[in-house]
Amino acid sequence: MRYPEKLLKLVRALAGLPGVGPKSAQKLGLFLVQNPEARAALLSGLEAAQALHPCPTCGNLAEEALCPICADPERDRKVICVVETIADLMALERSGEYTGLYHVLGGALNPLEGIGPEQLFLEPLFGRLEGVEEVILATGMTVEGEATATYLAERLSAHGVRSSRLAYGLPVGGSLEYADEVTLARALENRRGY
Amino acid sequence: MRYPEKLLKLVRALAGLPGVGPKSAQKLGLFLVQNPEARAALLSGLEAAQALHPCPTCGNLAEEALCPICADPERDRKVICVVETIADLMALERSGEYTGLYHVLGGALNPLEGIGPEQLFLEPLFGRLEGVEEVILATGMTVEGEATATYLAERLSAHGVRSSRLAYGLPVGGSLEYADEVTLARALENRRGY
Repeated sequence: MRYPEKLLKLVRALAGLPGVGPKSAQKLGLFLVQNPEARAALLSGLEAAQALHPCPTCGNLAEEALCPICADPERDRKVICVVETIADLMALERSGEYTGLYHVLGGALNPLEGIGPEQLFLEPLFGRLEGVEEVILATGMTVEGEATATYLAERLSAHGVRSSRLAYGLPVGGSLEYADEVTLARALENRRGY
Repeated sequence: MRYPEKLLKLVRALAGLPGVGPKSAQKLGLFLVQNPEARAALLSGLEAAQALHPCPTCGNLAEEALCPICADPERDRKVICVVETIADLMALERSGEYTGLYHVLGGALNPLEGIGPEQLFLEPLFGRLEGVEEVILATGMTVEGEATATYLAERLSAHGVRSSRLAYGLPVGGSLEYADEVTLARALENRRGY
């Protein structure tokens, strides 16, 4: 006997999720088949998620026409923070430090994987620069994130808009012993006077 | 801004799955919100899974009135193999060695966690012993699995039915170096003559 086709269908869908291997997909599939409550909760969660869509202005998740940040009159409209993903946006929001707007690219430039400016939510950024005084480039501290920030900084400068980059340095609570050399070098280079 | 309520609902449902921590639930939730195809595949997988139910005879997954094994006239009706879970049944089926029927308990006896015979699909086993010559006790090689096997062996003997237990020993391809002491002791004890 093999797994019933209806279970296989569920297992295949689960195995298509990021970070879910074939073994965990099987385990989750069997669990969901045998637990009507967990299944119902996931079904209604997925149905709720269908009501969410990308904000046409910034690419964040929206339930209404605009996302809660673009729709919030209290946010500072003179600053836009460019991030790669919605998860990055959420992380910055959790820090509680930032009160401006966002722009979610949906990834970083990666020519080797065929990701150019057209594959990202990038051009619309240049349509929202009116009244903007600063664009914070908060793409990842990776090769791709750096390349994307450099590319955007050049194009923003051509539009006459100032841009800035998140600081490199040691993480708060991080010990020097465990920091990698490049991070340490950058932390030294960017040292601040007391 | 916090996560939209509709995303939180999905994330909570995902966090309720076994082996999915809060961080992966967030990651999976954001992925599902942003990938309509993966979401549709999972939705239809979950809907298909609703058509599956436990076989009233053996506890295996069934699409029809009985599961494919109980319904198969080719299977040997004189042997029943008792397992803890459907995943265990699937593992035995993959070995291709076994041609009899199954009985899925849905767990093992565990008095500390309040799991007694009534919490398992256990009593129905004694209603299907007519014509059965052997019951193979294939519960786990754990304390709970052993206790369950011992309990069942005693009760089966009172019904005049012979029972057997899976063999302890080294796994095929396993090296002695990495085997734990108890397994090695049992493998020695159960050694076979050439």
